[in-house]
Amino acid sequence: MSSQSLLDQLIGALRCLPGVGSKTAQRMAYYLLERDREGGRHLSHIMAEAMERIGRCSCCRTLTELEVCRLCTNPHRDAAQLCVVETPADQTILEQAIDYRGLYFVLGGHLSPLDGIGPREIGLDLLDARLSEGKVKEVILATNPTVEGEATAQYIHDMANARDIRTTRIAQGVPMGGELEYVDGATIAHAFSGRSEF
Amino acid sequence: MSSQSLLDQLIGALRCLPGVGSKTAQRMAYYLLERDREGGRHLSHIMAEAMERIGRCSCCRTLTELEVCRLCTNPHRDAAQLCVVETPADQTILEQAIDYRGLYFVLGGHLSPLDGIGPREIGLDLLDARLSEGKVKEVILATNPTVEGEATAQYIHDMANARDIRTTRIAQGVPMGGELEYVDGATIAHAFSGRSEF
Repeated sequence: MSSQSLLDQLIGALRCLPGVGSKTAQRMAYYLLERDREGGRHLSHIMAEAMERIGRCSCCRTLTELEVCRLCTNPHRDAAQLCVVETPADQTILEQAIDYRGLYFVLGGHLSPLDGIGPREIGLDLLDARLSEGKVKEVILATNPTVEGEATAQYIHDMANARDIRTTRIAQGVPMGGELEYVDGATIAHAFSGRSEF
Repeated sequence: MSSQSLLDQLIGALRCLPGVGSKTAQRMAYYLLERDREGGRHLSHIMAEAMERIGRCSCCRTLTELEVCRLCTNPHRDAAQLCVVETPADQTILEQAIDYRGLYFVLGGHLSPLDGIGPREIGLDLLDARLSEGKVKEVILATNPTVEGEATAQYIHDMANARDIRTTRIAQGVPMGGELEYVDGATIAHAFSGRSEF
């Protein structure tokens, strides 16, 4: 047994959560112990289960406790469209924001050769096998608009191209509701060169 | 089994933490699953234990997994001084900020008759029994400088007074390092009327 009190151990353990420092961890621990033990019990139970049982979907690589996730097995989704994103969080954001009826492929990162992250590490072998099945007619590249995201998109574009599959890239430009004054130069330049008829 | 995915259940359960909304809960869940499963396992284990095993010290009512907390059983602390605070968090703040060698008594709230919180609910019967033992020579009232905190302090003062025990109240005035311009009127008035020789 540790020489730390259980309360101090709880405060220490809560700090593994992103954005939680010692003050916040203290507040969380006191709150759970004094006002919401039931919530704390429930959270500890669900968290233990989630850490053990959630893995990756064998079809799209998103996080799920199932062998194949619910989205991949949904017969109402259109298997001809495949949207490629970097993370499960990106997938969730797209699902919530748009009325998209196709399927997804979650890379779980981007190509980064210097960090030892090559095509296999982000599941591109699985994606290639998927494309070879012939069901996918359009690959929508929704990787981040960063240098690595662009490189990854380019790599996947070449892969799809070799199989004569159409690829599209989500539009880049000034964000909705933003003010030009506060938009960075690279975005402005991109939006200007990519202008379309009004 | 719930029809919600385990991931959604985890995100929902994380929202029981104070200050955590749906966006933050989502970020926490993805972070734990993608980058720190070990931390998540450890947290779920400690949290389950803490929810079951942490109770109140039978002597000072602070949160502890022991029958009597380490502070109360520490032979180097001075039993003649007893500092009364509202919450375990207040006790921690005092312990960290000052070089106090006496003991504590944690009320776990303040008197609030309208909410059904009377002397017994905040352990004042236990405090009275403690004072009757004759070891305590000074009761330091460190309840919050709010209306309820003041009323609670007054109640404890009367209780101690009946047993001829000295009571002191932590000083109230302008906070250190603050600027008068930003201090509220009630605090200024209190600091002004409570001025001392320079």
